[in-house]
Formats: sequence, C-alpha cells, structure tokens
Amino acid sequence: MNAVVVYDKQMEEKTLALLDERGVKLEDIAEIVYQIQIDYLPDLNLERCLSSVKAVLAKREVQHVVLTGIALDKLAEEHKIPEPLGELLRTDDFLYGVDEVIALGISNIYGSIGVTNFGYLDKVKIGVIEQINDKKRSGEQVNTFLDDLVASIAAAAAARLAHEAGYGHSRD
Amino acid sequence: MNAVVVYDKQMEEKTLALLDERGVKLEDIAEIVYQIQIDYLPDLNLERCLSSVKAVLAKREVQHVVLTGIALDKLAEEHKIPEPLGELLRTDDFLYGVDEVIALGISNIYGSIGVTNFGYLDKVKIGVIEQINDKKRSGEQVNTFLDDLVASIAAAAAARLAHEAGYGHSRD
Amino acid sequence: MNAVVVYDKQMEEKTLALLDERGVKLEDIAEIVYQIQIDYLPDLNLERCLSSVKAVLAKREVQHVVLTGIALDKLAEEHKIPEPLGELLRTDDFLYGVDEVIALGISNIYGSIGVTNFGYLDKVKIGVIEQINDKKRSGEQVNTFLDDLVASIAAAAAARLAHEAGYGHSRD
Amino acid sequence: MNAVVVYDKQMEEKTLALLDERGVKLEDIAEIVYQIQIDYLPDLNLERCLSSVKAVLAKREVQHVVLTGIALDKLAEEHKIPEPLGELLRTDDFLYGVDEVIALGISNIYGSIGVTNFGYLDKVKIGVIEQINDKKRSGEQVNTFLDDLVASIAAAAAARLAHEAGYGHSRD
Repeated sequence: MNAVVVYDKQMEEKTLALLDERGVKLEDIAEIVYQIQIDYLPDLNLERCLSSVKAVLAKREVQHVVLTGIALDKLAEEHKIPEPLGELLRTDDFLYGVDEVIALGISNIYGSIGVTNFGYLDKVKIGVIEQINDKKRSGEQVNTFLDDLVASIAAAAAARLAHEAGYGHSRD
Repeated sequence: MNAVVVYDKQMEEKTLALLDERGVKLEDIAEIVYQIQIDYLPDLNLERCLSSVKAVLAKREVQHVVLTGIALDKLAEEHKIPEPLGELLRTDDFLYGVDEVIALGISNIYGSIGVTNFGYLDKVKIGVIEQINDKKRSGEQVNTFLDDLVASIAAAAAARLAHEAGYGHSRD
Repeated sequence: MNAVVVYDKQMEEKTLALLDERGVKLEDIAEIVYQIQIDYLPDLNLERCLSSVKAVLAKREVQHVVLTGIALDKLAEEHKIPEPLGELLRTDDFLYGVDEVIALGISNIYGSIGVTNFGYLDKVKIGVIEQINDKKRSGEQVNTFLDDLVASIAAAAAARLAHEAGYGHSRD
Repeated sequence: MNAVVVYDKQMEEKTLALLDERGVKLEDIAEIVYQIQIDYLPDLNLERCLSSVKAVLAKREVQHVVLTGIALDKLAEEHKIPEPLGELLRTDDFLYGVDEVIALGISNIYGSIGVTNFGYLDKVKIGVIEQINDKKRSGEQVNTFLDDLVASIAAAAAARLAHEAGYGHSRD
C-alpha cells in the first residue's frame, strides 16, 4: 500500500466524520437519491442508493469541496471569518451564491443530469436537506454550505445510477 | 445606425419568429417566470416577467443557442440529420444530453441562480413546457431541444429579476 | 451480450468513423495530450495518451456531443442549415459560441482541470487543431465545431491522466 | 440613496481593499487584459481595460467569490483552517481544485469566452499572476485562491470587452 492511498483514505474518513458531526448520515442522503430515482428505476432499493452515495464521496474532488464548504460553515459559526463575509454566511444572505457554485463543482462531474438534479433539489428541499435548513433557521447551526453540499452529493449519486442503468434524462 | 446593430436586429427577429413558428409565445414563457418568482417578489406582474424574457432574448449568445437548437429539432423532423443521431433526436433518447448542455449555455450567464432555476424547470415541467412535451409525445413535432430552450430562457429571465430585486438565492 | 451493449458499440464506431472522415486521427489527439502533459508526467508515452483518448471517446455523453457537432459542420457545408445560422457556421462568426458550449460538455466531466485544459487549447492551437483550422480558413471544410471537439477530447484525456497519476492542477 | 445601494458600496470597497492588501492592483489586472486582447482590438488602451476590470468587480457575485477566496487564503495563513484542509491550502496541493471551481463562478457569467480566457490564464501565468505565484512559492503568502481569482477577473474583463466590441471568439 503506497503513501498516496493512505493519504486518500484519511481524507475520505475525515470527510465522512465531518458530515456525521454536522448531523448528516449517508443513509439520509441515500433516502433522497431513492426518492428522486424510484420513478425511473422501479426496482431500486436503498442499499444501491447508499452504495452510489459512497462512490461519489470516494472521489477526491468531492471530498475537497465538502471539506471546504463545511470549514466555512464552522468558521462562520465560531466568528472567525472576517466581516462582512462572516455575517453573509451566518444569515445565508439571499445574494450569496458561492455555496451553489462550489456544490456545482460536485454535480458537474456527473454531466448535465447531475446539474439538473442539483437544481431541482436546491428548490424542492427533501428529507435531511429540510432538517438542515430547520437548524439553520433556528440559529442552531450555520449551514449555508451544508444544505447545498448534501443536495449536490444526492444529485450526483442519482446521476451515477442513471448513467449506470443506461438511461439519463427524463424524456418528457 | 451602424451595420452591427442592423445585423443583431435581424438575428433577434429571426429568433422570435422561430419560437413562434414552433408554437411558443413569449407570454407563455413569461407565465412560467411568474409562477417560479411570485413567492419571492409578491408584487410581481406578468408585464415585468415579459420584459425580462425579452431582455434575455435580446442577448446574442442566447439567440445563437436558440437558433441552433431549433435547427436541430427541425432537421431531425425532416430526416436530414444522419443516423444514428437523427433517431436519437426523434425519440429524445434518455441518454442524449446535448439539449441540456446547450440550454445551460443560456442559464450559466445568469449565475448559479439561473442554473438551479433551469434544473428545477427541467424536472417540474410547467405551462408551455408541458404542452411542448405533449406535442413531442404525440409525434406531432420533434421538440428535443425546444423544451430545454424554453426552460432555460424562463430560468434566465427569473434569475434576472432576482438579481435586479437584490435577492438571489432561496435561503431555505 | 445484450441490446444496450451492441447499441453503444455501434455509436462508438460511428463516432470514430466520423472523426476519421473529417481528417482527425486518434493518434493526432494523443499527440496533443502528450504535449500538454509531458511536463507533469516525465515518463509519459504516446501509447498511454492514446489509451486515455480512447477511454474518453468510449463515454456515451462524449459520443453524443461529437456526433452533434460534426453533424452541424457537415450540414452547414451542404447548405442544409437555415439562414442566418448556416452562414454563421460557415464563416465561424466571431460571435458564435455554441461550439465552445457543447465542447465544454465534454471537458466538464473531467472537473476543473478538464475545463482549464480546454480553455488553454482553445487559444493555443496545437498540432491537428491547427491543421483543422487551416482547412477551415482555406474554405475546404466547415470545421466550426470540429476544432473545439478535438480540443475538448484532448483536454479531457489529459485531465484523466492527471487524476489517475494523483496530481491535478498546476501549482504555479 | 437607499440601504441596498449603501450596502453594496461597502462590499465593493471591502473587496478592492482586500485585493490591495494582498498585493494586487487593479492596474496590474488591466495589464493582463490588455495583453490578451490587443491582438483582437488594435486600438485598445490600458484605460479601457481598467474600466472593464472595475465593471467586473462592481458585480455582487464577483465580490462574494473574491471575499470568500481571500478569506480562505488568509485563514490558512493564520492556521485557523482545520486539518487536513489547512495543509492542502498552504501547499496548494496539486489535487485541490476548489480554487478553480469558485474562480469559474466569475468567468461563467461572461459566457464561454470568459471560461476559455480563464483556462488560458490558468496555464500561462502573465504579469501579476506570476508575481502572486512567486510569493506563494517563497512561502511569503498563502495564495492558493488569489492567483485563480485574479486570472478569472482578468478573463471576465477581457470577455466583457470582446462582447462589447461585437466579436467574441477567436476564429482560428
């Protein structure tokens, strides 16, 4: 086993640990994948959705985006981000779009299906995304990046299943 | 009035004429914009939505995307596209994603709000987008590109209004 | 062997045949990959570059983009594209950017490295890209899409090698 | 003068002050714009390039990206970013691509010309971009985001001039 593999393994574990620390379980993300894919893949099950979520999170680019986004959320929470940016993040200012921009860095890798899935989930909050937002609204956590990260991981995992199954875009 | 302006004017008129020929009225696109923006801008009206649609369609890049997409739909209809591409377009194959790719060329110009709006409309067909799909399903027209073009114009026009109004992203 | 696999095989063969018909050999694309990667991977060889080009072209999304772009070039050549679009394509109008937009649909799949590689090759024409442009300038062929397609395939194949080798972005 | 305008003005001033603090003058960015545009616009001058840079930096989305990127550079410098992300940023790890991803959030607004300009500048460091990299290499500053931000602002300002002048893409 060489150094690079060890390194990547640590990065992956850190990424999963951070999601868990912020209250996101991979099973919750898999649940979203299931909901947006079941119409296209009638014999889909949660286990396959979970595998797809894990495959997305095994990618280095994805890990880097997740680490960066959650770091910004936590630093804003701890008031370590200089103003006026800190306040923009704490209030998730309507005008601030860098959260969507970095989340698109995840969805883009899975082609236009990944991107359209993300756009949909960004509007129609489902499952754990809604819970993340509730914590944000109540002031319990700064989750400006987290909700978009979760939406983009789910969007990417769903697009992976679509490509695998040999279909890709809704026809209608 | 210089040559460039005349040229652009012709290109714009041609674009609007093609949309009309394929059964899409600007008022129909404005209606979609209204539906996805009214929650954010309570005193919005259809007139302002229509102005925003027109402003999007006045952009050269947008005109080029629309002319290209509709040309592909029509050439596929007339069986002038070589196989296997012609058949992919006539059946709007699940696997084919170039329609979304070029539509994103319109939404991208309006930032991440444009992109997420497009992703949403690509899934939740509203108003004239549903009608375009009905014509496609019935075999009346090849509309593989047209539905995505209309969704991306509406997405862009809605994003324009959001930027103008000084808000941008749904916070929740 | 199931139906889906046969279908894909035909699509891939058609894509490679079209590139060949338009004067592009996979070895020529591999040569570009070599030139832009040799500084980062000192023991790179042309064979590995060629394998990476083939892996990119084995992707369905890539095949669809290539088939669509070359179809537009050929239809413009045969004066089958309605005006004013036909003329825009035949002259590769400075204003027309749909060629870059669809080519980015290929590069995007390989992350930000794919995109920056493409941007570079779009400016600094290397090897066969320059030859394609010469044929365009001389009026021999309409190659408005072809040069961007080749640049994006090379950009993607180079990004693949970068990800594989465990490095990704130029640090300086 | 209403509240929204005041707010934006402060955000803009903060953005310009941060660039200055990190050693980047707008004139330096204008110089890059000049170098990559002079071949296309023979009577271009530095003043017009500077105006275009200022127009790009007047956009809210651009300001947000710049504030976020520079905050990450500074927090990494001050060892306030949790590991392993802090170390990734301090060494500008070859694998880390979030800097390019957020910079593309600026270039994307100016269409495919903005994106290809950015890809070019990301490879061929010109003027102040090279100086930023020198400071990074010498360990004087963490500039993982700053070089990409400056490249994307220059890319965007150049694309603005191209659209304005009625040309857009290099034809060859």
